[in-house]
Amino acid sequence: VIPKQDVSMEDVARRLGVSISTVSRALRGTPGVAPATRARIVREAEALSYVVSPAAASLAGGKTGRVGVLVPKLDTWFYSSVVSGIEKVLREAGLETSVYCVPRAADRFEFFEQLPLRRRVDGVIVVSIPLDTRAESRLRALGMPVVVVSSRSEIFASVSVDDNRAARQAVDHLVRAGHRRIGLIRTVDPDNTSWAADKARVQGYHDALAAAGIDQSNDLVATVPWGIDGGARGMELLLSAIDPPTAVFCFSDEVAMGALRTLRRSGIAVPEAMSLVSVDDHPMAELADLTTVRQPASEQGTLAAELLIEQIRGAEPRHADLATQLVVRHSTRALAVASVLIQSTDRVG
Amino acid sequence: VIPKQDVSMEDVARRLGVSISTVSRALRGTPGVAPATRARIVREAEALSYVVSPAAASLAGGKTGRVGVLVPKLDTWFYSSVVSGIEKVLREAGLETSVYCVPRAADRFEFFEQLPLRRRVDGVIVVSIPLDTRAESRLRALGMPVVVVSSRSEIFASVSVDDNRAARQAVDHLVRAGHRRIGLIRTVDPDNTSWAADKARVQGYHDALAAAGIDQSNDLVATVPWGIDGGARGMELLLSAIDPPTAVFCFSDEVAMGALRTLRRSGIAVPEAMSLVSVDDHPMAELADLTTVRQPASEQGTLAAELLIEQIRGAEPRHADLATQLVVRHSTRALAVASVLIQSTDRVG
Repeated sequence: VIPKQDVSMEDVARRLGVSISTVSRALRGTPGVAPATRARIVREAEALSYVVSPAAASLAGGKTGRVGVLVPKLDTWFYSSVVSGIEKVLREAGLETSVYCVPRAADRFEFFEQLPLRRRVDGVIVVSIPLDTRAESRLRALGMPVVVVSSRSEIFASVSVDDNRAARQAVDHLVRAGHRRIGLIRTVDPDNTSWAADKARVQGYHDALAAAGIDQSNDLVATVPWGIDGGARGMELLLSAIDPPTAVFCFSDEVAMGALRTLRRSGIAVPEAMSLVSVDDHPMAELADLTTVRQPASEQGTLAAELLIEQIRGAEPRHADLATQLVVRHSTRALAVASVLIQSTDRVG
Repeated sequence: VIPKQDVSMEDVARRLGVSISTVSRALRGTPGVAPATRARIVREAEALSYVVSPAAASLAGGKTGRVGVLVPKLDTWFYSSVVSGIEKVLREAGLETSVYCVPRAADRFEFFEQLPLRRRVDGVIVVSIPLDTRAESRLRALGMPVVVVSSRSEIFASVSVDDNRAARQAVDHLVRAGHRRIGLIRTVDPDNTSWAADKARVQGYHDALAAAGIDQSNDLVATVPWGIDGGARGMELLLSAIDPPTAVFCFSDEVAMGALRTLRRSGIAVPEAMSLVSVDDHPMAELADLTTVRQPASEQGTLAAELLIEQIRGAEPRHADLATQLVVRHSTRALAVASVLIQSTDRVG
């Protein structure tokens, strides 16, 4: 069917006196619509030259039927889960997902200067990308709904977890287990861009130590590129300290996986000689028996898409926070045991 | 700049007597263009009301400046890597990536019936989705370039690895190590759809056993849903056999990770009492010391995008095969050692 005119699901619903969701379900073939009703709706839609997908955008109130999703990368657990959650909700609302990947600071600068989104999308979801004042004003100038994921925005709608709190949940767990020498493996990207999640988790680490009255020594913080190799390097740096930590908080599970590799190669038993905790609850964390603070990733995506659709339909921008939760597995243990084994490891080495 | 007319980089290049890539670099702000040349190009582009991103599509010869990517899911290593590779090449060519996720057979049926791609994209990349005759003819009716990823297409351009060969590389490795009772954990999706990669790997498994003159017994094949939990269940099924295998070939690394979990919980040592090999070389495979057959995932994406751009520019569709390669780690071992330890495990049990 080639559309001859702009017809929306709302038009079809109005003419037949049924709800928009009935029209949507009938045209999508979803169960729950009586066959006679479905036939009437399909006939009417065909008479109106209705074409399902592009026009479905009118349901959401948009013009292009498409939403732009801006991410730093796609091929890691967090980002692919968030985008997957976004795409699912948009698809069910009849909207398409255009993905813009901007891995480097230069890509991001160029993206915000050129803003290829204009007249190509009805709204934008920005995942984790650091937004400076210039980028914010460029985005705002688009005059379309924007939702920011993974940090709280002062200007746009946003969906996030409280990364400071997530870090405190992780470090408090180590403190309660008696650890005092608690290391941190934090991450920077190659452009030295400061990412909101990293800053907030680092602050949460310091806040938790301060609350426990623990003296904070700089040689217990390793800064590495994000990823498995970065985590491996970070643990090497921490093990280079004169007095290494007995427990380490890692920025994320993938970083912790790398740290685990270094520990295994060093013959340092986890959790006997070293406790490890991180953030995410990556699918591999359970297999690695990794204690972690779970953050819902695909749910951040679904919620962001819902907030964006709300705004496209005219609602005011709003903020949503999702909870994080400690998941205790076998990579953490009380210090009393750990210190004895570290000494025996020292003797063996 | 609001575009008043359709102006392409080619127009700008022709008027100034420079190459299209110089225009592209100048407008994108990439280094390597003399400041004076850059100024001339920007002036000319502005005079022609040139708008970088949408018009950049004309460089590739398309009309919408956008490519549709059809995937069964986004949040697993293989698919997120392929899409990441696709998006990178398209972005560098000035094209946008619209992602259509169709997880269930019903979604796929609906997608091919409604074909929301018409007049919304310049080409389509179909990743792994099974295409029946109807879907193929619907796609062909779009009259636009199509590239299929992860199986060889008779009709469209395609990029794939030889999954039969990948399976034989894995199983031959076990055969050379002296194993004769070699199990298989294969996967089906909840709709019982038959996937090309699974079929080809299963055939490769049987081919390798036949070539080695090994009698093939059905109780050594477990069929499970794809994923970690499926792999865990698959190993439980194989361990339920009266005479369990001494080695198992798993459909993919994530399936093997689940199988490893069952083995660990069963107290069966890998590789001493059970050898395990799979396909992928997932980032976690190295950490799990998993022997696997590496398939290049993001490279399948980049190559597919390159083949699509070629076609948009007028080239004939063609096929590209990427090689797979055995990566030997510590999850496989010669049978002589394994059988002794299985006996001792039996006694302990």
